[in-house]
Amino acid sequence: MKRIPTSELPGRVGERVRVAGWLQHRRELSHVTFLGLRDGRGLVQIVLAQDEEAGELRELPFESVVEVEGDVVAAPQAPGGVELHAPRVSVVARAESDLPIDLRRPQLTERLPTRLDHASLALRHMRERAKFHLAAASVAGFRAALDRLDFVEIQTPKLVGSATEGGANVFEVGYFGRTAYLAQSPQLYKQMLVGVFERVYETGTVFRAEPHETARHLAEYVSLDAELGFVEDHTTVMGVVREAIAGMLGAVLSRRDAMELLELDLPELPAQIPSVRFDDGQRLIEEAVDRRVVGEPDLAPADERWLGEWARREHGSEFLFVVGYPMEKRPFYTHPDPAQPELSNSFDLLFRGVEVVTGGQRLHRYHDYLAALAARGMSPEPFAGYLEAFRYGMPPHGGFALGLERWLARLVGAENVRETTLFPRDRHRLSP
Amino acid sequence: MKRIPTSELPGRVGERVRVAGWLQHRRELSHVTFLGLRDGRGLVQIVLAQDEEAGELRELPFESVVEVEGDVVAAPQAPGGVELHAPRVSVVARAESDLPIDLRRPQLTERLPTRLDHASLALRHMRERAKFHLAAASVAGFRAALDRLDFVEIQTPKLVGSATEGGANVFEVGYFGRTAYLAQSPQLYKQMLVGVFERVYETGTVFRAEPHETARHLAEYVSLDAELGFVEDHTTVMGVVREAIAGMLGAVLSRRDAMELLELDLPELPAQIPSVRFDDGQRLIEEAVDRRVVGEPDLAPADERWLGEWARREHGSEFLFVVGYPMEKRPFYTHPDPAQPELSNSFDLLFRGVEVVTGGQRLHRYHDYLAALAARGMSPEPFAGYLEAFRYGMPPHGGFALGLERWLARLVGAENVRETTLFPRDRHRLSP
Repeated sequence: MKRIPTSELPGRVGERVRVAGWLQHRRELSHVTFLGLRDGRGLVQIVLAQDEEAGELRELPFESVVEVEGDVVAAPQAPGGVELHAPRVSVVARAESDLPIDLRRPQLTERLPTRLDHASLALRHMRERAKFHLAAASVAGFRAALDRLDFVEIQTPKLVGSATEGGANVFEVGYFGRTAYLAQSPQLYKQMLVGVFERVYETGTVFRAEPHETARHLAEYVSLDAELGFVEDHTTVMGVVREAIAGMLGAVLSRRDAMELLELDLPELPAQIPSVRFDDGQRLIEEAVDRRVVGEPDLAPADERWLGEWARREHGSEFLFVVGYPMEKRPFYTHPDPAQPELSNSFDLLFRGVEVVTGGQRLHRYHDYLAALAARGMSPEPFAGYLEAFRYGMPPHGGFALGLERWLARLVGAENVRETTLFPRDRHRLSP
Repeated sequence: MKRIPTSELPGRVGERVRVAGWLQHRRELSHVTFLGLRDGRGLVQIVLAQDEEAGELRELPFESVVEVEGDVVAAPQAPGGVELHAPRVSVVARAESDLPIDLRRPQLTERLPTRLDHASLALRHMRERAKFHLAAASVAGFRAALDRLDFVEIQTPKLVGSATEGGANVFEVGYFGRTAYLAQSPQLYKQMLVGVFERVYETGTVFRAEPHETARHLAEYVSLDAELGFVEDHTTVMGVVREAIAGMLGAVLSRRDAMELLELDLPELPAQIPSVRFDDGQRLIEEAVDRRVVGEPDLAPADERWLGEWARREHGSEFLFVVGYPMEKRPFYTHPDPAQPELSNSFDLLFRGVEVVTGGQRLHRYHDYLAALAARGMSPEPFAGYLEAFRYGMPPHGGFALGLERWLARLVGAENVRETTLFPRDRHRLSP
């Protein structure tokens, strides 16, 4: 008899079937024992009458892998609306009985460090894994949206010859007797490839040697990056960001099982995401709170939270673009605002009060690059292969990057990006 | 007037349109000048009569970015069957005139090291970039095939705490005062996640500190990895490999533009990929060539080439599974053949005589892992987080990995994987 997934059981009432999975829980009443079997798709309740022969099933440790043949019986009160009766069980792999994580509760109750230490077990919890179904859907939705817009998927090197974007927070690698660095972003490569494909995206790992232990930084994360040529300015890029987010939300919505398990409300994406100028935003905050904000070169996390609340209140939107950041804090390839050169043609996208996207227009003329590097006291030499692209013809272009773990944290309401990363890495954590 | 891509010109005969792109070539005849404008989608010929005013167009350096308005005229002999007449040109970005790569020829003639040194230019050649359209299609086809089979996409850490798969050829990273390593594969993580999702895949970067400079090894490459639970044995995995390859070839075929540009014949994928036992294969080779092969623990590249030819001759197939490799050369998690424990339930897939996939069944019982590590003199301690998955219930499972650059090299007939990598990394090359 061929194994079927538990998700197909509701269509098999009256049949004898075979399922397989992990023994998740057991509840013994006076006349009957209920057992929960979890597989990759869901959960089914197995009913064992008091006098029924059930092999090892009555004393088998939780998380043991079993195959079960049984009769599918309608049971409106049971998960999925069915139960398995008259089970015949065979044990595939017996678990040890000293489980460090209790997977039987509706939610895990262990503290985060314990969950992370035992990730291969904690992630088995259906609510835990549901988050990563939404991560997979988000990435798929991002790709699908950009595929429709004629972007080409690329893979760029993670081992690079120079600490390209300023030098701070970069990991060093021993590379055949010399030093290489782990790429902090695909920025320079995706720009070079605009000269090849016009429109590119990458969904890959990036590395930041973040010295601070915060709830929104990791040493390694997944960056959804895009870059496109022949833009008007940064507003063209913002239009693509909206399309990408729409694709991601659409794909997330199609994982209705995970959405329901996590009891999530999907944010509504306005046809036009509202936008506030950086300096206007600072003035709004300073008027409302007792703190100097105007004149700071960047927004603090508290400022972003305030603006997130403001956008919800004023615009009914959980998304807010902030535009017109000062050039001062932006990287060397940033394009200035032609009307106010101390400001930049760049933007952040706040989602529920946290920056999840950074983007903007880039310089595209070779001599502008030489000037920008010189103004920052940076040598053009380590950038030779990159600058060549601009020396030989590059169109106006721009792009953006979205941090997957941060996006997912906002989506599912997690306080810490470590809750939305399968195996997070930080200053203190390098395993499992 | 809104810019349109050159690929839309055949449907716009008789209209005045606007295109933009790179000035690729110029051919001056006595009465007329032909110019080639390349954009992200294709190429169009611009016709300039002798007396026509054309701004800088007659002397503009190649690879300059221009916008051109012109009349679309049918011209069966021209690329795409149309030309642009009566052009009005504006220069977006003027290129320097000392181009290190000649992009005007039907194929690049520079040597490989020169092409790689100037990758951001060499990749602009339409035949060069077409290869990477097929790379993108291959990855998309891989994902689509596995999505249909209910696999979940995962992202696993590239920074790991121990040199997990034996210790050789691993890069060391300075990690907040201690040493981390770059993951050589997602192997251990994808197995742990079989316990969570049952079926997983990852398309990500892996790292090998390959000391040898060969035509088929890189220090960093893209690995298409999959792993699934509840398998019968390695043959279940081989069935999934065939589905994945079918998905990849289907997606490649949908890039007809790139296929035609590269003049490629797509290999036919047999309904059942032929298979040869490792020891039988060795005997066949030894009978045919004057070289000792039987008894070697692995196949040499020449052996794989010979078997590739044999499969084409005997089975009419460009794909061949080799099964039953000795346990000796396989990693510790390899599942032995229950009938002959010195052999393994593992396989390689040869494509046109080169191994592009390695896979097999893995051990799934905790005590088998302890025994396998002990037999190799390896400590279980660095594997604690991994072994926990097996301690608490794991089904029979297996998986495989496909090297994207190698696959693409076989597909397009490239001799060297450096020709099928955007920015290759090896012992001597770390830029651009």
